[in-house]
Order: sequence, then C-alpha cells, then structure tokens
Amino acid sequence: MRINMNNQSFSAAVIGATGYTGQEMVALLARHPRLRTAFATSESETGRRIRGSTLEYVRVGDVPLGEVDVAFICLPHGEAGAWALRAREAGTRVVDLSSDLRDGSHGAVYGLTELSRDEVRDADLVANPGCYPTGVLLALAPLLTAGLVDTTRAMIVNAASGVTGAGRAAKRELLFAEVAEDYRAYGVGNTHRHVPEIRRGLAAAAGDDVPFLFTPHLLPVRRGILETIYVPVVDAADARSVVDAWQAAYAAEPFVEIRSPDLPSLRDGVLRNTVVLGAADVEAAGAPLVVAVASFDNLIKGAAGQAIQNANLMLGLCEHEGLPR
Amino acid sequence: MRINMNNQSFSAAVIGATGYTGQEMVALLARHPRLRTAFATSESETGRRIRGSTLEYVRVGDVPLGEVDVAFICLPHGEAGAWALRAREAGTRVVDLSSDLRDGSHGAVYGLTELSRDEVRDADLVANPGCYPTGVLLALAPLLTAGLVDTTRAMIVNAASGVTGAGRAAKRELLFAEVAEDYRAYGVGNTHRHVPEIRRGLAAAAGDDVPFLFTPHLLPVRRGILETIYVPVVDAADARSVVDAWQAAYAAEPFVEIRSPDLPSLRDGVLRNTVVLGAADVEAAGAPLVVAVASFDNLIKGAAGQAIQNANLMLGLCEHEGLPR
Amino acid sequence: MRINMNNQSFSAAVIGATGYTGQEMVALLARHPRLRTAFATSESETGRRIRGSTLEYVRVGDVPLGEVDVAFICLPHGEAGAWALRAREAGTRVVDLSSDLRDGSHGAVYGLTELSRDEVRDADLVANPGCYPTGVLLALAPLLTAGLVDTTRAMIVNAASGVTGAGRAAKRELLFAEVAEDYRAYGVGNTHRHVPEIRRGLAAAAGDDVPFLFTPHLLPVRRGILETIYVPVVDAADARSVVDAWQAAYAAEPFVEIRSPDLPSLRDGVLRNTVVLGAADVEAAGAPLVVAVASFDNLIKGAAGQAIQNANLMLGLCEHEGLPR
Amino acid sequence: MRINMNNQSFSAAVIGATGYTGQEMVALLARHPRLRTAFATSESETGRRIRGSTLEYVRVGDVPLGEVDVAFICLPHGEAGAWALRAREAGTRVVDLSSDLRDGSHGAVYGLTELSRDEVRDADLVANPGCYPTGVLLALAPLLTAGLVDTTRAMIVNAASGVTGAGRAAKRELLFAEVAEDYRAYGVGNTHRHVPEIRRGLAAAAGDDVPFLFTPHLLPVRRGILETIYVPVVDAADARSVVDAWQAAYAAEPFVEIRSPDLPSLRDGVLRNTVVLGAADVEAAGAPLVVAVASFDNLIKGAAGQAIQNANLMLGLCEHEGLPR
Repeated sequence: MRINMNNQSFSAAVIGATGYTGQEMVALLARHPRLRTAFATSESETGRRIRGSTLEYVRVGDVPLGEVDVAFICLPHGEAGAWALRAREAGTRVVDLSSDLRDGSHGAVYGLTELSRDEVRDADLVANPGCYPTGVLLALAPLLTAGLVDTTRAMIVNAASGVTGAGRAAKRELLFAEVAEDYRAYGVGNTHRHVPEIRRGLAAAAGDDVPFLFTPHLLPVRRGILETIYVPVVDAADARSVVDAWQAAYAAEPFVEIRSPDLPSLRDGVLRNTVVLGAADVEAAGAPLVVAVASFDNLIKGAAGQAIQNANLMLGLCEHEGLPR
Repeated sequence: MRINMNNQSFSAAVIGATGYTGQEMVALLARHPRLRTAFATSESETGRRIRGSTLEYVRVGDVPLGEVDVAFICLPHGEAGAWALRAREAGTRVVDLSSDLRDGSHGAVYGLTELSRDEVRDADLVANPGCYPTGVLLALAPLLTAGLVDTTRAMIVNAASGVTGAGRAAKRELLFAEVAEDYRAYGVGNTHRHVPEIRRGLAAAAGDDVPFLFTPHLLPVRRGILETIYVPVVDAADARSVVDAWQAAYAAEPFVEIRSPDLPSLRDGVLRNTVVLGAADVEAAGAPLVVAVASFDNLIKGAAGQAIQNANLMLGLCEHEGLPR
Repeated sequence: MRINMNNQSFSAAVIGATGYTGQEMVALLARHPRLRTAFATSESETGRRIRGSTLEYVRVGDVPLGEVDVAFICLPHGEAGAWALRAREAGTRVVDLSSDLRDGSHGAVYGLTELSRDEVRDADLVANPGCYPTGVLLALAPLLTAGLVDTTRAMIVNAASGVTGAGRAAKRELLFAEVAEDYRAYGVGNTHRHVPEIRRGLAAAAGDDVPFLFTPHLLPVRRGILETIYVPVVDAADARSVVDAWQAAYAAEPFVEIRSPDLPSLRDGVLRNTVVLGAADVEAAGAPLVVAVASFDNLIKGAAGQAIQNANLMLGLCEHEGLPR
Repeated sequence: MRINMNNQSFSAAVIGATGYTGQEMVALLARHPRLRTAFATSESETGRRIRGSTLEYVRVGDVPLGEVDVAFICLPHGEAGAWALRAREAGTRVVDLSSDLRDGSHGAVYGLTELSRDEVRDADLVANPGCYPTGVLLALAPLLTAGLVDTTRAMIVNAASGVTGAGRAAKRELLFAEVAEDYRAYGVGNTHRHVPEIRRGLAAAAGDDVPFLFTPHLLPVRRGILETIYVPVVDAADARSVVDAWQAAYAAEPFVEIRSPDLPSLRDGVLRNTVVLGAADVEAAGAPLVVAVASFDNLIKGAAGQAIQNANLMLGLCEHEGLPR
C-alpha cells in the first residue's frame, strides 16, 4: 500500500474526452487538487479549445502515453480495451471505463472500489464498473454476503436511467423530441450488455450463481440512475436487517449513504460521487420481500467519479481527493 | 340491454371540472357527437368561462342533477362518493371517478369496462376504476383466468406515472422545480391507495386472494402510465402464452392493443383511450418469469375516457362513441 | 370557386412521411372524413407498417403520382421542390411544405391560407408557409395594412420554438441530453432561413420593404411556437387598436383566435390548427410600442394543418374539414 | 478597504433557508473555506436536519443575530427588509437578497458587485440585486457609459427564466404539469417587479432616465436566465464595439465571461457564479441594432453567489472565495 504523503502532483490523459463520460472526467479533474488533465483527446474536435480550460483536444495517437501518471480510457466499448492495453504497455496506470475488460481479461482488476479496494491499490489496469452494476452490486453484495437473500427466488432489479447513460452519439431515438414525455423499458429479459457483469458480481458475493432479473428503462432526465430492487429475503429478515447489513459493510465508506426509513429519490444521488441506499418493508406479498432503492449519478459514481476513486488509490492519494461529497 | 338506435342526444354534468380529470372529461365530451356537457362545476372558478367553450362554471349546488342524463363525479376522494349518491337519488345515471365506491358499496358497479360490460350496461351507478388498477387488471386478469400465473409467487408491478396522476392541488412536491430531473418511488410496500382495488380485481380473476406487490413511481412527464409487470408463470408458459391469452380475451376489444414482440413505450399509450400491452421472455432468472408491459393514458383510459366508455354503455350508445382511437 | 357538394372522397400521397411534419400529416389525414392517405413514402422504412394504420411505407419512386388527388411534399428543403414539380407534371394537385418554392418560382402560390384564400383555391401548386412566418405574418399583416405600424422603426420578433421544428434527423445538438435544461438563440441577426419569406410577406402587406428583426430560440419542449413581437406603433395606436385590426381581419376565420386582455401561452396554441393572438400595452418605453404575442403549433397550423386547409380549398371541400379546433 | 490576511473564519446566518435561494445559499456556504453557516432558519421545518449537514433549522426569532459575522436574508419580499434592519441593529453585517431595500432606503448599498465594489466593501447593509437586473445591468451599463447606445430608442430586453426564479411556494401555476411543455410571457409592458430596479441601474449608467422595455418569460427548466437584448446602437457602433466595451469594463473580473463571436446558451451560465455575455450584428433592420445575450444562473450569480461575493468583500476576504468558477 502506497500512501503519497508529500504534495506531489500527477498528470492524467483523458482518452475520448467529448462523450458524456469523457466530459465529466475532464470536469471532475479540473477540480482535483493533485491530478490534472495533461491531455484530452478527440478525433472530431482536434485543435479546439476545451470549454473552460486552456487545453486543446489532441488526437489519441499524439498522446505520449508513457509520460502521464494515469490514463482514463473513455472510448466506446470495443475500441477502448485495445487502447487500455496500449497505455499499460507504455508504462502508465490505466482506468478503462468501457466494458471491454470487466471480465478480468488481460489481468484487469474489476474496480468496484468499495468491494475491491486492495486489489485496485496494487493494480496497473483497472476495469471501471458499468453504471447500472455499480448500484446493483453495492446494494446487493452485502446482503448476499450476510445471508439475507433467499437465493432460491430471483432478485428483480427495475432500473431507470437518465439519457446521458446512452452516450452522446447522434441517434434518432435519443433526440429530445423522441425522449421527452416518454419512458420505456429496453434490454428486457436479461439481454442488456451489463447483465454478465452483474451476474459475475452477484456470484462473487454469493459464492455461486444466483437468479436475478435486470430491466433497465430510459427516463426523460439528463442524469441519474434509480434502481428499485425487489429482494427476496430469508424468513427472519426485513428492511431493518438490510439496513443493518449495509451499515456493517459501509460504516466507514465516504461514498455510500444509507437512508432510513426514507427512500432516496433520483435527485438525492445526482451531482455527487455517492450511492444512496434505502430499504422498505412490504406487506402481504406472499414470501418475504424487501424493496431496496439505490440512487446515484451515472456519470460520477457510475463512471468518472469512481474512476477517480480508483486512480487516487493507484497513485497513493486519499481515495476521496477531488471528489464532490 | 339498450341500444339507442335513433340519433338522440344526451346531456352530462361534470362535477368538479377544474382538476386534471375534470378538464379531460370536458375536453373529451366536447368531441363527443351525442353527449354534451350541460353543466361543469367549480367552486373556485364559478362564473368563469370554460376555455374553448361558451359554458361557464357553476357551483355544484346549482346543478339540477335530475335533469341531466349522466353525471361524472370528478371530485376528490372522500368528497365524491356523497355527491355520486345524491346524483343517483336525483334520478340521473352516475359515473364516479373517485375511489369512494370502488368496493361496491351502495350498489356501485365497478366499471372496468372490458371485464364488466354487462353489469355496467344495466347500472345506474358506476365506480370508475383507478388509473393504476386499470392497466394492472387488464394485463393480469386474463392470465389468471387462463391459469398461466404461478400464484405461489408474487406478481410484481413496477409502475410509473406522469404527474397529472397526482392531481392539480398546489403542493410543493409537485412543483416543476421539484419534479423535473427527478424520479422517485412512493407508496412503497403495498401502501398505495390503489392496492385494495388491485387486490379485489386480482382475487376476482383468480378466484382467491393472490400475492402481489405494487410499487408506483413519479415520472417527470405530464401524462401516461407505464407498468412493468414481473409475472411468475407456470412451467409451460412463456411470453407467447401470455400474448395468446390476451388475444383470446381482447380480440374484439376496441380499446386494448396487443403488441408483440415489441414492448410499448409510455408514449404509445398516451392521448388515446387504449391500453397497449406487450410481453417478453426472460432468460436465466430461476423460476419462469414473463415481463409484461402495459402503457396507457392515466387521464383517458385511466379516467375520463373509460368513464365515457361506461356512460356510453349506460345510455345505450356505442361504447366507442366520441373516443379517440 | 369549386364547392364539392356531394360526398366524394379524395386520396392523398404523403411524400416523406417519417419526419415530424410527415408523421403529423399522416396523423391528421387519419381523422379527415374525406381525404385519405393512399401512399406514404419512406426510403429508410420501406415495407414497414405505419403505426396505427394498415398502410405500409413505399418508396417515393413507386408512387403513381398521377393517380392521387393531392400530394403533400414533406421532404427536406432542397429535395422537395423537384418532387413538387414532378407531381404537378403528373397531373396531381400539390402542397409543398418545404421552403423551396415559397418565393413563387415555378408558379407556386404562397399558401398562407387566411391571406391568399382565393389564389389557393385555384392553384395546382401551393407552397405551404414556414412555421415561424405563419405566426409573424398573421400577426403583423393586418396591422401593416391598417396603417398601425410606424415603419420607420423595426418590428422585432423574438420567437421560440419546440424542437420538432428542427426536424427529425439525428443531430448531436438535438439530443435530449443537450436540449433539456437549455435554451438558446440561433440564426441571430436576420440570418435564419425564414427571413426572406417574412420579408416578402411583410412587404406585401405594407406595400414596401419594412424593417424588422427576427430572432428564433430553441425551447426544451416538443412542439409549439411562441412569438413575442415588439410592434412600433403610430402615435394614436395601442393594444386596443391592434386587437381591433385583428378582429376586423379575422372575424370570420375559423383558425385565428384573438385573446384580450390575456396573452396566450405556448400551450394555448398547441395540438390545434389555430394561431392564438394577444396584445398588451407598454408603459414608459419611449416611442409607442405594443407587445403582440402569437402562439401556435409548429407541426399543425405551422405545417401539416395549414397544408390540409390549403388542400381542402384546392379540392373544393370546406376549409376546416378534418381539422382539430 | 479591509484585507483579511490571516486565516480567520467567519460565521453566517441564513435567514429563510428552505426557499430555492436559501437552499442555494446553504449549499454554497458548505463549500466556502472561510465562511460557515452557523444558523439556518425555517419556521415550517424547525428542528429538522438540513440535508447533507449536521445543522438543524431554527426559528428566526431564536438566532442570536449579534453573534454572527454576516446575515443573509432570504425571506420573501415584504418580510425581508425588516429582518435586515433588525440584524444590522444587532451589529452584524447584512446581505438582503429581497427587493425591499434595493432603492437604497435605510442606507442600504445596492450590491451589483462589479459596478459598486468599493461601496460594498465598506457597507454594513447590502441590498443584493434581483436576478433579472443582474444580467441586464452587467450587459448594458458599460455600453451606456461608453456612449454606444442610441438612447432615443428603447433597449428591449426579452428575458427567459427557469422556474426556481418564481420561488418555492406551492402555487398551481408552477406545478410540473402546468409548466412542462409550456412557455409564456408575464409581467408584460414594464409591469414586472424588477422594472424600477432596472430603471435605476440604467439611469445611473446613462446619467439620465433611458427608455427600455423588459419582458420576462417562464421557461420549462429548473434554473438559469437567458436575456436576449436588442440594443439600439449609435451609428458607428456594432457587435465589435459592444464586445470591446465589455472587455474594457470587465477585463479583470473573475465572474464575467465574454464570448465572441458565439453567443452563450442558457446552460453556459448555469451552476456557476458567472454572467456570460455575447453580441451579434444584425443586418437590414433599419436603424443600427446589436443583439446582446446574457446567460447566468438565477440562483447563483443572480442571488446566492453574488451575495457571497458581497459578503466576502464586507469581511475583507477575497471576492471569489468559495465560489464555483
């Protein structure tokens, strides 16, 4: 474990800086006291000044990857993994925000910070979690570990996300006039790209594969994810046990907030690097169920903020350095 | 059964015409070829002209209830029931849009039109269903009747509604600046006012009480309800069987649309008097589940439109007269 | 002047039916009692069923233009004009909703219905007005004609439009996450594409070129245009004179509503084929000014609805046939 | 002029802390390194914990006003002035965010920081500017001073504000379902409460009363103001001269950003304490006009942020201490 005691500063490259995640990355780093953006890349806006900065976008091929202390890969899935490996080879620490390496391939450490802090600290390549899985796993892992979940029944995650989660590529179905006053399920039936990642995370906590169903929805808001989770609990368990398990697991965590008996709304988790959790009892629904709710910002705790948590650890800085609380 | 063959016209009173439901009632009646608003009441706007009409709001006490052919009671819960009974006593047919009489008290017929058409036709007092129950029951009743549901497990209804569903009273939590960019669960744990109504409807279809969990959410949109329903199905059943059961039940229905394999989005059900249903299979979630989705307009099919369906039947008119399709 | 007395029905082709204007065209025609869509074209969705219809999209090249009674050209500017001429050559009546022929080239009649009803009635090719000009010209033309405007000073039109006005092409700047919680001016300084059309219309009413400034803004709403117009009036004139001039000009018009002393909001003009006008006096701003406000639906009165008004006239039908009021 | 060189910390009371301005005040102070909220008042939520804080709301009557270094009065107009005077009498510095004392009564200094920095520094009672006037005056004052405005013609300010500008009181017309998909002018004809304040500010810059017209509009967004200002300029002047005058006046200002030739959108000014200005030329509109645009956050630069700028000066701190940039 490295603790960086002196006031050393570090440099970062943001690879793919004009998508919503890349923009958030640059915005968060601008407020980081010890990690500054040295390079931000864009193929389409090369040479243009970054809003609110003296830096200009450069081509990814022009970044001297070996000279920065950490590279944040914010490229699209499919494209990102190769750049992450290239950056590691050049000798820099890497946080890859895509899904390319989240299965642990190429020695990448899955960086759900609260659950794998020690591995992250020693890693040179971290696969930053997907936005939806971040909330699902932070909510459910401690309950599985504590034996509160009746794993003969499926956990059902009804999730809803703001549209920045769908990326900044120009697609007709993401136009304002299509999304406003609408709301829809997509990736229904465990077909969403994040399902394998959730499956792995839940299995790791439970010690075995466990049944679950994940249904994302598109909300007409800009940012934020709210996950309403139907947790089949063992006989003696209730919302109180759920909250207790969370408190036991997260008492010292700076970026998990437990709310009880209130449930968080979407806005409670937005514009900060925190997952807000709440739980409520259910009456008269047959076998015992608890409704758990997780609220967080898809671009911060679900992406760029968590990436900084991870980079802070990799660089020996305080985990919360530069993060809004 | 009355069929009104000649071109007779009828008169209606809208009791409580300035809430969102009352406004929609007046707007729909304005396009009805054979049912016209003779009186529309408002205590706060008495004497003011109704937008787009030559009619003025009158006090409810000034309406000669016995002289209209049908009275639509759009007053708040608690207040509505008494006026519904008073109107019936005065000799008019009544559709009460509140929840006051939905338990069948005072001889009110529960008017989920597709499921109780014959009783409605002969009724003098109809309790119009709540918005959420309309979609839940139209989606689930045929599945229960057909024996497709494994009733040892709970049906889970994750519902989301536009804010007109919360009424037009000035409440801080419904201000634009509170609701925009937010999304929240409320009435969690089967505590919502509509739960008893859903319970009765499901029990009627199943022949017995069946376990379910209903979780409504508030969406930052004006109108529309989307219900994502997790249906525990019996072993041989799947999305195909669900669609088949719906088609068997609703083949001749003008106001139920079945979509397959696509699922409806919120907007598919808005600004029309139709519940749009869809179903999708689920892989690898333990015991068999189907995801069913119901989309409809909370103010039309979930309130004023269905009220006109019922009134049309009571008056011997075609059920779809004056209704947007 | 033709008046079509018998109950003859007519057929229409909607050329370019998947943009917002084309969709609205198809939706309005679906409710038209005597004009039905026989063909609707889309190059990208050829063969797919039109939502809520039994019709399938066909390629524009496959439409037998000579066999329909009227063709509505809803293609992009630049592309539309050529198809409008081709359709006319094939012998059908044409309403072109693009800006290609609004300068009267190729004998096209500029179809601002209320101001050129007689020419439209006898036309075989009508150039349907742009959305912004529709409101500007209906508001200002009668004031210019009546001599109420001090044309030594510029009329200033501060306009705001919902995003459907910007079309349905996938552009990054029209994504929900870009438009929501934003608002911006564009085409500032009389550089918007509609400026020449406004200039011609004002000059026609004034008898000469008159100074004006048009500044459109993009609103985070789906539909509707609200134009706040600063009218420099001659010394004796005020809001009352403005309202009087409108009433004199539009007393018999079914699709112009004059509101006084209230001013219309955006929503007052939406989902109907009506321009709603209002005027207010100004105190203490130097030379006399009146604030006029025009509100209307960019897709209906500003496009598809007005196109139907024009087609109705061309076919000898009642002008208001099939139009929401 | 006091400059506070040591690291002394100061305490603040936020009087009226549950409205949108009061909430923003508390949120900004939470990030201020040297000014902390010691008391936050609410009559309706007394005893409840402030979100994200260890502080509880207290009654205004229970605040020992003489013991805090500065009091921010965020009460409604009409109520605020009396508390501002009471706080000053108790011996604390006061920033009153209401309009009660903006006419300079009771010796209050009008605190448009950029234009009256020296007076603010020595003041014990500052009347913080209204949100709309902040942008109007920062945009126009330097142009008037520089003699660029043709004051024989009216400056026309077409302003649009997010709904937090209308306050947090529960009013029907501010409900989500009323405001969404709407947009409207209000206070038309120089009747808005901010008109006298604008008039005074423009007269101060021009040396005499000058004609103007101010028309606010309500936008369906949560925060931000965009003002589109039609500036009648003298013959030789154009957008370039306007930008030059701004640059001369604001070169050293940390909280004014000048953009050219782009114009700022609403979002450019939001979530920061900065007024963003831009100007564009106009062609062919008769007498010379420039379109100036000001964008800023109504709750920050238009209220709580500017209040901190003023308090910082009054306490001898750096003006930008604790303010987002």
